Amino acid sequence: MNFKSDNTASASPEILAALSECSAGATASYGEDEWTATVKARFAALFEADVDVYVVATGTAANALSLAAMTPPWGSILCHREAHIETDEAGAPEFYTGGAKLVLIDGADAKISPEGLEEALTRNRRGVHSVHPGVVSISNATERGAVYAPGEIAALASIAHREGIGLHMDGARFANALAHLGCTPRALANGAGVDVLSFGATKNGALAAEAVIVFDVGRARDIAARRKRAGHLLSKHRYLAAQMLAYLDGDLWLRNARRANALAARIADAAGDWLSAPVQSNHVFVKPGAAVLAALRDAGVESYEWGAPGSGEARLVVSWNQPEEDVTRLCAALTRLRA
Amino acid sequence: MNFKSDNTASASPEILAALSECSAGATASYGEDEWTATVKARFAALFEADVDVYVVATGTAANALSLAAMTPPWGSILCHREAHIETDEAGAPEFYTGGAKLVLIDGADAKISPEGLEEALTRNRRGVHSVHPGVVSISNATERGAVYAPGEIAALASIAHREGIGLHMDGARFANALAHLGCTPRALANGAGVDVLSFGATKNGALAAEAVIVFDVGRARDIAARRKRAGHLLSKHRYLAAQMLAYLDGDLWLRNARRANALAARIADAAGDWLSAPVQSNHVFVKPGAAVLAALRDAGVESYEWGAPGSGEARLVVSWNQPEEDVTRLCAALTRLRA
Amino acid sequence: MNFKSDNTASASPEILAALSECSAGATASYGEDEWTATVKARFAALFEADVDVYVVATGTAANALSLAAMTPPWGSILCHREAHIETDEAGAPEFYTGGAKLVLIDGADAKISPEGLEEALTRNRRGVHSVHPGVVSISNATERGAVYAPGEIAALASIAHREGIGLHMDGARFANALAHLGCTPRALANGAGVDVLSFGATKNGALAAEAVIVFDVGRARDIAARRKRAGHLLSKHRYLAAQMLAYLDGDLWLRNARRANALAARIADAAGDWLSAPVQSNHVFVKPGAAVLAALRDAGVESYEWGAPGSGEARLVVSWNQPEEDVTRLCAALTRLRA
Amino acid sequence: MNFKSDNTASASPEILAALSECSAGATASYGEDEWTATVKARFAALFEADVDVYVVATGTAANALSLAAMTPPWGSILCHREAHIETDEAGAPEFYTGGAKLVLIDGADAKISPEGLEEALTRNRRGVHSVHPGVVSISNATERGAVYAPGEIAALASIAHREGIGLHMDGARFANALAHLGCTPRALANGAGVDVLSFGATKNGALAAEAVIVFDVGRARDIAARRKRAGHLLSKHRYLAAQMLAYLDGDLWLRNARRANALAARIADAAGDWLSAPVQSNHVFVKPGAAVLAALRDAGVESYEWGAPGSGEARLVVSWNQPEEDVTRLCAALTRLRA
Repeated sequence: MNFKSDNTASASPEILAALSECSAGATASYGEDEWTATVKARFAALFEADVDVYVVATGTAANALSLAAMTPPWGSILCHREAHIETDEAGAPEFYTGGAKLVLIDGADAKISPEGLEEALTRNRRGVHSVHPGVVSISNATERGAVYAPGEIAALASIAHREGIGLHMDGARFANALAHLGCTPRALANGAGVDVLSFGATKNGALAAEAVIVFDVGRARDIAARRKRAGHLLSKHRYLAAQMLAYLDGDLWLRNARRANALAARIADAAGDWLSAPVQSNHVFVKPGAAVLAALRDAGVESYEWGAPGSGEARLVVSWNQPEEDVTRLCAALTRLRA
Repeated sequence: MNFKSDNTASASPEILAALSECSAGATASYGEDEWTATVKARFAALFEADVDVYVVATGTAANALSLAAMTPPWGSILCHREAHIETDEAGAPEFYTGGAKLVLIDGADAKISPEGLEEALTRNRRGVHSVHPGVVSISNATERGAVYAPGEIAALASIAHREGIGLHMDGARFANALAHLGCTPRALANGAGVDVLSFGATKNGALAAEAVIVFDVGRARDIAARRKRAGHLLSKHRYLAAQMLAYLDGDLWLRNARRANALAARIADAAGDWLSAPVQSNHVFVKPGAAVLAALRDAGVESYEWGAPGSGEARLVVSWNQPEEDVTRLCAALTRLRA
Repeated sequence: MNFKSDNTASASPEILAALSECSAGATASYGEDEWTATVKARFAALFEADVDVYVVATGTAANALSLAAMTPPWGSILCHREAHIETDEAGAPEFYTGGAKLVLIDGADAKISPEGLEEALTRNRRGVHSVHPGVVSISNATERGAVYAPGEIAALASIAHREGIGLHMDGARFANALAHLGCTPRALANGAGVDVLSFGATKNGALAAEAVIVFDVGRARDIAARRKRAGHLLSKHRYLAAQMLAYLDGDLWLRNARRANALAARIADAAGDWLSAPVQSNHVFVKPGAAVLAALRDAGVESYEWGAPGSGEARLVVSWNQPEEDVTRLCAALTRLRA
Repeated sequence: MNFKSDNTASASPEILAALSECSAGATASYGEDEWTATVKARFAALFEADVDVYVVATGTAANALSLAAMTPPWGSILCHREAHIETDEAGAPEFYTGGAKLVLIDGADAKISPEGLEEALTRNRRGVHSVHPGVVSISNATERGAVYAPGEIAALASIAHREGIGLHMDGARFANALAHLGCTPRALANGAGVDVLSFGATKNGALAAEAVIVFDVGRARDIAARRKRAGHLLSKHRYLAAQMLAYLDGDLWLRNARRANALAARIADAAGDWLSAPVQSNHVFVKPGAAVLAALRDAGVESYEWGAPGSGEARLVVSWNQPEEDVTRLCAALTRLRA
């Protein structure tokens, strides 16, 4: 029962099949192929807008390229203290931006509030001596499994735009957020004021494919040049594009996400008041104490302890193809332990 | 008849099949999987040495990571004027190294000679005012299709090591070079003094997989950290590793390269004295003049003009799966035009 | 009555005189002159140790060069939340290091405690996904005017060294700290485990001169190369060296600092329980509320409000040549307002 | 007889005096002082245009800041192979720009021609695979002592502007060039299409003062932020400004340059056909062979050998305050040796 992360999962059969299907014959390289053109058209339709699209192989690359295009090197990246870009990307945003500074904001469930953002903006008002406001970045779903509703995003976007800076959304689990809300992709992204979206596919069924979707080109120039010099422009680019097309085809992405979310909801029910964060995506945070966590481990549940060592809290992540049996057994164990 | 580049080719069926085969079940992410461990062992056996191995999705990433690990930001990267790292990577080496300077060396067939290297080393002997010698980088096969023999490499390695710096080899087409020479991998790499090798697979049959092979860890530290913060550590790393394993299995890599080399040799025979560079790999350079190139285009031959516009020279690249019929027709056209 | 900052002060006459005195004749440039050699010898004697010395024109340069030499680009710079390198250098540490991350630590009086440092070290224990521990940096005197005693420094140094990283001290006001403690320079620097010291002179009487003093060369390589490529190696270097020599001659540096500290102590006495930080150097923090601050302004006292707007707190900095009359009048105003 | 470099010279008495004169009382720091405001007004008058002015302590900083503001990190810096930014700044342009690539152009007397520039521009026309044209940089006077006339500059500016990029001039010896031509400052800078000028003072009489003069703000944004985070915004900024004012007062700069140029012309007359470059500033290049150079050394003449070791060529630089006796003796030696 591996609930460690959705990146332990394999790829969807539909996506693997697409790789073979696009393998006939020679084609133009470096993204000049027809699959890549179709990807752009598909995203334009999905978000009901003109978009620029840059497909890359990792979420860290998608985030770092987006942020580098949105802030100068002397800018700040305003984000939550638990944001993936702060805690898990080994300084990739700093590398790609040429040294921008992540300014951290607290907030429940890894979400930032308008008040939190306003406070953070005041921290660097010392003119030439401070870093300048550069870009606001939020994750949706967040690193604590919570989901920003469109109105919450719009409130942050409006502050960012008032400051003359853009709003980036790390959508490594955008599908899970969308599946939770049931709104349109547009409503959760450009419609809410998001300027650039890292649209994830890898965690939800692809092998390695993430798209940077640029809604406001004026706020994110030069990604083509940045991607190439970062070594993220794949020569046989059709293999990235084909993954993304299969991911979108027949709403595979939403079907995968809905399934994972639904299984997570079952776990949430079983966990009851052990829950330590709202369950709105495929993440379940429980804080039953160290003894219970040990009992779960003994029962065969693999997961990451969360927070400081000995916190007694754990993160359980449901993958798109998590065996239903895993969830049933986990729920049974939780029910038994809570009794 | 697409002879534009070997990156227009699709992937080998064996490699596509390997992606599906490794897709069963959850596995550890970020390179902690068993396929990745096997890749390392396979390369150790291949090069008869302890090696560190870092698999990434592009050759630019492999080269830039290697170089960044080998030179300080204030170092020089001594390479041929036509090196891929100088002409085609959009400044990736400069980005990854934090601003190292490419110092360019002339030489026939895109090869650098010991004399050329010595001369270049003398250009920056102004103490703190100059960049310092950082790393020597050669391509094998070269960007002009030529192949360095082990002795030639050893001569350059010995100069580099005398200066206290390392030798990097861009082996985007290492398989083609090896197929040409028929020696062991070791003889052409660590045995000849190469410290770090970018071992290419993408152009010769993979979807997107290149390996940085480190022979001398003392000359290339910190690649793990650099790779992660460059966004080149894939989460579902098994899909990179599986490509590389299938590439090595049953000598697929050498079979692919031998086939391409042999077809290139046929073209060379047909091109006769129009050849403008030695044909030792899967590249054929011809300089028949603009009128002949136009006639070839009219005959359906797609290729890149080489050198300055109007140079009358073209590069013909044979892919691993180039239809034999393409070559037969190209040879016929050449023979006809030469008559 | 300008109490805004010690960098509003002019230069000591002794230092201005030294500039003219060193102006006779041609001399070797770029630090090959005799004055520079003497500076190094003087610092070696002062700190009773072999030292490397790099004189530059600004404290930001001294700090950023030191930090860049001590941490890799993927490292963390562990420092107090109010550290000058975090709040007032516009991202210079990030620029010079190639994107290291400042990890912020809370603590009274802008000092970090061993517990605070230990906690911060635990924040980034996620292997390749985290930035690595890079360097610990403290300011002495701190940005709140407090002074670390040798034992406090040694406790932090011992944690840093246990982690395999170095301890940097921003000594922009090292003279004020030393004047407060009355110990030897060595006791407050290398004797307490400091590996690299930014030794300030500008704020305490020089025109523009700060020295990077390296005690442990193994922890701070390559500063010569870094300084040159940062444009901080002055060609007529004697003019930096001469400032530093005059600063040290006859203990000018300590005399200036003692005077400023003593005047600050007089203000502290007058401020009484309005003091909001210990007065151990030339800084006085008072928090009498907005109305009193307005009254002080009306009385002609210029200073910076501290903290959030409307905090009712102010920072009063005494310069090396602050007119005694300024202090007398300020004390009178404080006494009157407190009555 | 020290003819090694003009940076071996001391500072002009007028400039030293100005440092003391500006030392009365406290003043605003970081360039908010009145001297700095006056510097800007003086340059606006001198160049008959609105200008932004940033004074820094070194020419390398002035050049690197200018270039970083003019090219993106993936741009090229098109310059002469012997340009100071290529040969003597240890990679500072690469550091400040975040990794731009210097594309080198050949040309007599270290000058680039329109043809040379056009050729260099064609080297990187490979779309996303190449670096993009970033900025053209010329030195006036050049590193070989030659002077670009206004028309020559305008021809290069017109090519640069056609490409959508700017023209930077390294004017470390702008005064010498202007003294040679006798035209107005405007005619040799903004009037000829220069967008940003590094206006040198250090080599010609200042202690350490260079100004970045921005004529076209649209081509060089963000220098204020870049200067601060590079540690080149001096806190006691008046001491930079006062140097620059004294340098301009009473045409001290032109008087110093005219004197040095005139002495160089005397040496040129004595050197006759040993001259290896035109003498149009304070530099004299002679190529009399190794034996004569040895004889000059024996006669007490200190200078740098030029070119490859054993080239038999030397560079003789006349400082602003070079003793006339030095020149007289050098001329006598040359005359004697040529006899």
